[in-house]
Amino acid sequence: MKKHKKPPLIHHPWKIITDRFDPEFIPAYESIFSIGNGYMGQRANFEEDYSGPHLQGTYTGGIYYPDKTRVGWWKVGYPEYFAKVPNSPNWIGIHIKAGDEILDLFQGQVSDFRMELDMQRDLLIREFSFRFPSGKILRIQSQRFISMHTKSLGAIRYQITSINFDGEIQVAPYIDGGIKNSDANYGEYFWDIRQIISGPGNDAYLTAETRKTRFGVCTGMLNRFYLNGLSIHPEKSISESGKKIAYNYHFKLHPGDELVLEKYAAVTHTLNIPYDRLHPESRKILEKAAVEGWEKLLNQHVESWKKIWQMSDIQIQGDTAAQQGIRYNILQLNHTYTGHDPRLNIGPKGFTGEKYGGGTYWDTEAFCLPFYLGTKNKNVAKNLLLYRYRHLPKAIENAEKLGFNGGAALYPMVTMNGEESHNEWEITFEEIHRNGAIVYAIYNYVNYTGDESYIRDYGMEVMIAIARFWAQRFSFSQAKKKYVLLGVTGPNEYENNVNNNWYTAYIARWNLEYTLDWIERLRIEHPEHWRRIEQTTGIRPDEIQYWRELTGNIYFPYDEEHQIFLQQDGFLDKEIRPASNIPHEQRPINQHWSWDRILRSCFIKQADVLQGMYFFENHFTRNTLKRHFEFYEPLTVHESSLSPCVHAILASSLDKDDKAYELYLRTARLDLDDYNAEVHEGLHITSMAGTWLAVVQGFGGMRSFDGRLSFRPKLPAAWTSLDFKINYRDRLLRVHINRQKVEIENLSEKPIGFRLFDSEIELAGGKKVEWNFQNREA
Amino acid sequence: MKKHKKPPLIHHPWKIITDRFDPEFIPAYESIFSIGNGYMGQRANFEEDYSGPHLQGTYTGGIYYPDKTRVGWWKVGYPEYFAKVPNSPNWIGIHIKAGDEILDLFQGQVSDFRMELDMQRDLLIREFSFRFPSGKILRIQSQRFISMHTKSLGAIRYQITSINFDGEIQVAPYIDGGIKNSDANYGEYFWDIRQIISGPGNDAYLTAETRKTRFGVCTGMLNRFYLNGLSIHPEKSISESGKKIAYNYHFKLHPGDELVLEKYAAVTHTLNIPYDRLHPESRKILEKAAVEGWEKLLNQHVESWKKIWQMSDIQIQGDTAAQQGIRYNILQLNHTYTGHDPRLNIGPKGFTGEKYGGGTYWDTEAFCLPFYLGTKNKNVAKNLLLYRYRHLPKAIENAEKLGFNGGAALYPMVTMNGEESHNEWEITFEEIHRNGAIVYAIYNYVNYTGDESYIRDYGMEVMIAIARFWAQRFSFSQAKKKYVLLGVTGPNEYENNVNNNWYTAYIARWNLEYTLDWIERLRIEHPEHWRRIEQTTGIRPDEIQYWRELTGNIYFPYDEEHQIFLQQDGFLDKEIRPASNIPHEQRPINQHWSWDRILRSCFIKQADVLQGMYFFENHFTRNTLKRHFEFYEPLTVHESSLSPCVHAILASSLDKDDKAYELYLRTARLDLDDYNAEVHEGLHITSMAGTWLAVVQGFGGMRSFDGRLSFRPKLPAAWTSLDFKINYRDRLLRVHINRQKVEIENLSEKPIGFRLFDSEIELAGGKKVEWNFQNREA
Repeated sequence: MKKHKKPPLIHHPWKIITDRFDPEFIPAYESIFSIGNGYMGQRANFEEDYSGPHLQGTYTGGIYYPDKTRVGWWKVGYPEYFAKVPNSPNWIGIHIKAGDEILDLFQGQVSDFRMELDMQRDLLIREFSFRFPSGKILRIQSQRFISMHTKSLGAIRYQITSINFDGEIQVAPYIDGGIKNSDANYGEYFWDIRQIISGPGNDAYLTAETRKTRFGVCTGMLNRFYLNGLSIHPEKSISESGKKIAYNYHFKLHPGDELVLEKYAAVTHTLNIPYDRLHPESRKILEKAAVEGWEKLLNQHVESWKKIWQMSDIQIQGDTAAQQGIRYNILQLNHTYTGHDPRLNIGPKGFTGEKYGGGTYWDTEAFCLPFYLGTKNKNVAKNLLLYRYRHLPKAIENAEKLGFNGGAALYPMVTMNGEESHNEWEITFEEIHRNGAIVYAIYNYVNYTGDESYIRDYGMEVMIAIARFWAQRFSFSQAKKKYVLLGVTGPNEYENNVNNNWYTAYIARWNLEYTLDWIERLRIEHPEHWRRIEQTTGIRPDEIQYWRELTGNIYFPYDEEHQIFLQQDGFLDKEIRPASNIPHEQRPINQHWSWDRILRSCFIKQADVLQGMYFFENHFTRNTLKRHFEFYEPLTVHESSLSPCVHAILASSLDKDDKAYELYLRTARLDLDDYNAEVHEGLHITSMAGTWLAVVQGFGGMRSFDGRLSFRPKLPAAWTSLDFKINYRDRLLRVHINRQKVEIENLSEKPIGFRLFDSEIELAGGKKVEWNFQNREA
Repeated sequence: MKKHKKPPLIHHPWKIITDRFDPEFIPAYESIFSIGNGYMGQRANFEEDYSGPHLQGTYTGGIYYPDKTRVGWWKVGYPEYFAKVPNSPNWIGIHIKAGDEILDLFQGQVSDFRMELDMQRDLLIREFSFRFPSGKILRIQSQRFISMHTKSLGAIRYQITSINFDGEIQVAPYIDGGIKNSDANYGEYFWDIRQIISGPGNDAYLTAETRKTRFGVCTGMLNRFYLNGLSIHPEKSISESGKKIAYNYHFKLHPGDELVLEKYAAVTHTLNIPYDRLHPESRKILEKAAVEGWEKLLNQHVESWKKIWQMSDIQIQGDTAAQQGIRYNILQLNHTYTGHDPRLNIGPKGFTGEKYGGGTYWDTEAFCLPFYLGTKNKNVAKNLLLYRYRHLPKAIENAEKLGFNGGAALYPMVTMNGEESHNEWEITFEEIHRNGAIVYAIYNYVNYTGDESYIRDYGMEVMIAIARFWAQRFSFSQAKKKYVLLGVTGPNEYENNVNNNWYTAYIARWNLEYTLDWIERLRIEHPEHWRRIEQTTGIRPDEIQYWRELTGNIYFPYDEEHQIFLQQDGFLDKEIRPASNIPHEQRPINQHWSWDRILRSCFIKQADVLQGMYFFENHFTRNTLKRHFEFYEPLTVHESSLSPCVHAILASSLDKDDKAYELYLRTARLDLDDYNAEVHEGLHITSMAGTWLAVVQGFGGMRSFDGRLSFRPKLPAAWTSLDFKINYRDRLLRVHINRQKVEIENLSEKPIGFRLFDSEIELAGGKKVEWNFQNREA
């Protein structure tokens, strides 16, 4: 097991800070201090050369390369490729040479180092003094942001101060298209460089095209210089290899001189703009940026962030680490997805690493959607739903590849364009519960927003296709005289190819029921829409009839003795023992145990039965929830970053306060404290949404089922207060919880109804309600 | 589905013949006409250049390269590499140029083509006329063998007759070390060429070393020429690249001239000889060959084969295709393994292709061992057992990697050196029944040979290590109050990760019981050996005690209604329908159905429950066998080449004669008729042993359980007679069956007892017994 070293970060409510330069932590910093704006993202790589171990990473949303599948033994139905977000041309690079020495933090002496991610302004700041082997000392201060205001714009302000150096310095900002994905199955290079243009001024452009998929990306830079505060216009020489363009500038520096480079970058691509317009468009963006200048661009960016924080900030008093953690999660979720484009989605690592290829998983529907529902205008969440709607034809094709027909859809486990990328049979073909989450997300969207038009305009087609899948996927057991679901993998991926996974069967039945309910409603309330849907989907009465029969006769494994639903058939044939029995040095088990040992054990990776009880909490009594929680949680090793949050929420609602807080802590600062010793690979973006859920649903006690909002808050003992906001049916609520009371304020003009503990409340626009804990205990 | 085209072969009792040259069939011919001698093997590639699609293949037994594992998602316990027999330096090549035109069968006009594998002499013969684009015509006649007498020797006699050509011909025999495996995971080249030596005469040597594993192989050639029957000594020029050496000879040819090249090749390697001795040894072999000459070398080879055929030939009268098929199988099994070296074993494709890497599978113990027991001196089978004995420490390591301890052994699914090569978790970690076959082979060896010393000298250590594995692998189910076997894959690989696979549990229990029985016997009969084994294995009384408890309380899934053992838990939850219902165009299902569809179906790849009933036929009543055969066989798609033979044997013993013959036909000429449209990848060597079993055990009705030999012969309607021989306890029996009678002759001097139908017979040396079918029917 890799020894875990926590990255040396300083606790601060609004800033992520480190003041320790240590090559050992550079790959972790590169992930942690990542920035992005949903359109593109950038690891916190240094602008200068860095020859130490690190992962250079610039990523552009929606672009992908079909990386040839790597598999031991091919099986029919496997996808030919894994669609991966390619590491895109690097626009941050600035090569610095003082005399004949290169500025490379791995090759000299670094002091007074500080790196800071100012979350309020979303600004990456870095400064350090660098002593070259020869003794020359420079002081560097850099700032960087990717504009939340102008999506295709990035900006760097790079200041060099000579401490004791008297001589010529070379500053060479560049664009490098020679970048490779570290996660390439066969070491392939994903790009063709099509064009390198040296602009008329200090601007340059590199247009790269992904091989095979032919996405064009034009990356431009424009450089401006200031010496001791005065704008200067140095001569340049151009270095161009086939894959890189650098502009070389030379300056005479004396001790005390301050040289500033402002480097603006524009990234445009063919998802939005025809190939021929890329270069002109990049140029236009850069020229505009040059006119507006650093301060104005930064201000626009900060203004955009102000609006984000107004909707979504969470305040935790009494625990700076927790405050920092939750803001960091909100920040990074916004770096990854802003909802401006339904062709984009949320990769598990966002734009901060290459693992999982940048594709979309069920994480989006199961964990991320409520965050965006709660903190954004409803169109953002709608775009997440439309992403799947747009992929419906591919999901139908995908199901056909596996032998389904008649319009049945199986959404992929991982995807960029709607096609499956994953190629382990037990996941790709069997972890089909993902289909359930797609429908649950539709339900949740309607639930939060009240926007039922989505169902008739888009959702019903998806729901019908998924219902068709379930109808074909269940089979009738003569032995059980019930419909059974054979050969599935549940959310707990530590069981593969099991029969009658309760969660999958349950969400499948619910999918069918929800679809049947809506068919009835549409028939009656919107017959014209229903007729159109009948046409589009070709749905037949006998299908609907069969779904009714099926939903009424599905087998769910249940144990009378424990009075629990079994995770799957035969679960109690296992040796049942608590995860706490596993020796510490064997954790995580997925790094220490062979796969078959894991499969044969009773240990659960992440919520499975309890995932269902979380989604459908309103279907079960408190006693039932408690019995299942007490049976399954002790068996759970929480080796998915998506596990603790669900359990924390359930624990909190079952008044298991210590457990809830313990589980919350396991995700709250997962990346900042690098619990899993893997932050260098990128951040756990989707699980950040889980942490948000743990705070808002767990401690905030917020729920919404069937369009009824409710709160049952409970403040962790370590906190003095918690403030969060919730966007619900176009109303914005501010919730304040402290040791004494709960205060909920309706920040909108329109009234809203909800339940607070056991009271039904109607809150007019602009009003607030207070609830005193004293009252309750009395 | 690839359209199946049967290779155009001519039926002949002793020869494999084709007279049709068609580039489409060349890759198939290359496999079918392969030769070998257990030490090395060679696909029937042409000596001349051939630029059409084909697979060049020269393989050397026991040498392997660790080809880096290719896997989608790594799991703890996976092997780092797949050990593969590397494609070795090509020694057959002869480059021919007439004037400025290269002789390349893909680039000219081929006529009067004939290729023949003379099975009696094991001689590959090929002849054809070749018209160059310019109109020149040559007649080529080549002969090739790999000596069964001198294992490291190969020989080619290559005759060029000018039909109408008057001019200079260049003949350039070569050794090429620049060969690559077509089945290389990352396209790596497996060799380093260490030395190329041009000998003093017409000899040359190329020494290659496998990368990483550092096996040295020295391939030498020596060339002799005859023009119109007279030995000639032409000048040569040498072409040498870094990986290849060719000797160029030039001749003036006139119409009618006959030029003969005898090319001898010697292959030595560091498994047998120190690196420094390779070249001298190869040279010695070649010099001796040159002295002895073609005729004598061929005679020695043919003499060795005469002995093989004397022990193992099977004669089928009335069906030339069947006669050809069974002899072909015996031939190819002898090409692959001759039992001279316990470090060698039987790859599924022998030396005829690269699929499966040339490693050892359970095929050896389950299917091949009885062939070698029945047709060879017992040392041959003993060497197959010693192979596993030598690998015991690695099998223990392998089990440790998966979390077992205390000397438990899990033999690998595929191996070259005792380490696991396979990397699919459901096979590597779960298809553990292979351990059972290792013990069954020990049982079978003792059963056939009576040589119990093997158990005390070697077998018991293996049996104890395997018993330890089973003891740890079963777990106790509180729900069932029985020991259960969770998470296994049975012989039917169309079910993965199932619970309580009956076959695996049954053979495991039998392993434990057999081991316990022998422990008792050794304790009493050979206490000094037992003390040594106690020391070596550290076996404790409580282990033995636990094995007893375990064997008495193992769970076997059983269905009362059908009165059958279930293949695994929940088997009857599947939709049960006969394989004959599957539309023809969807067969084989593994090429048409997604894996999950296969897994969810009731269809069985190869004998599973029935494999157990075959191994332990003596444990079950005829009615039980019948019930299980009638339940399971109709569900079986026989998509493993190892499937039909077992079913044919059972069908024959259940008097399902048509079924038996139908199933026999599916393997009898599997490769000759290329049933599976994949013969170009290599031959199905291990399933050839299965065909032998189908003939000898199926139609011959031969059985041996617990040291009791018996016969219950039954001649297929299409045959007029069947003759085979069986080596049993150092006696050789000849069995003749025709429509009227069965005749069994003891060809040895010592007496032998056996059962023929229901009569117990004691047959003195040199005597024979006759049994008339008329008698029986009466």
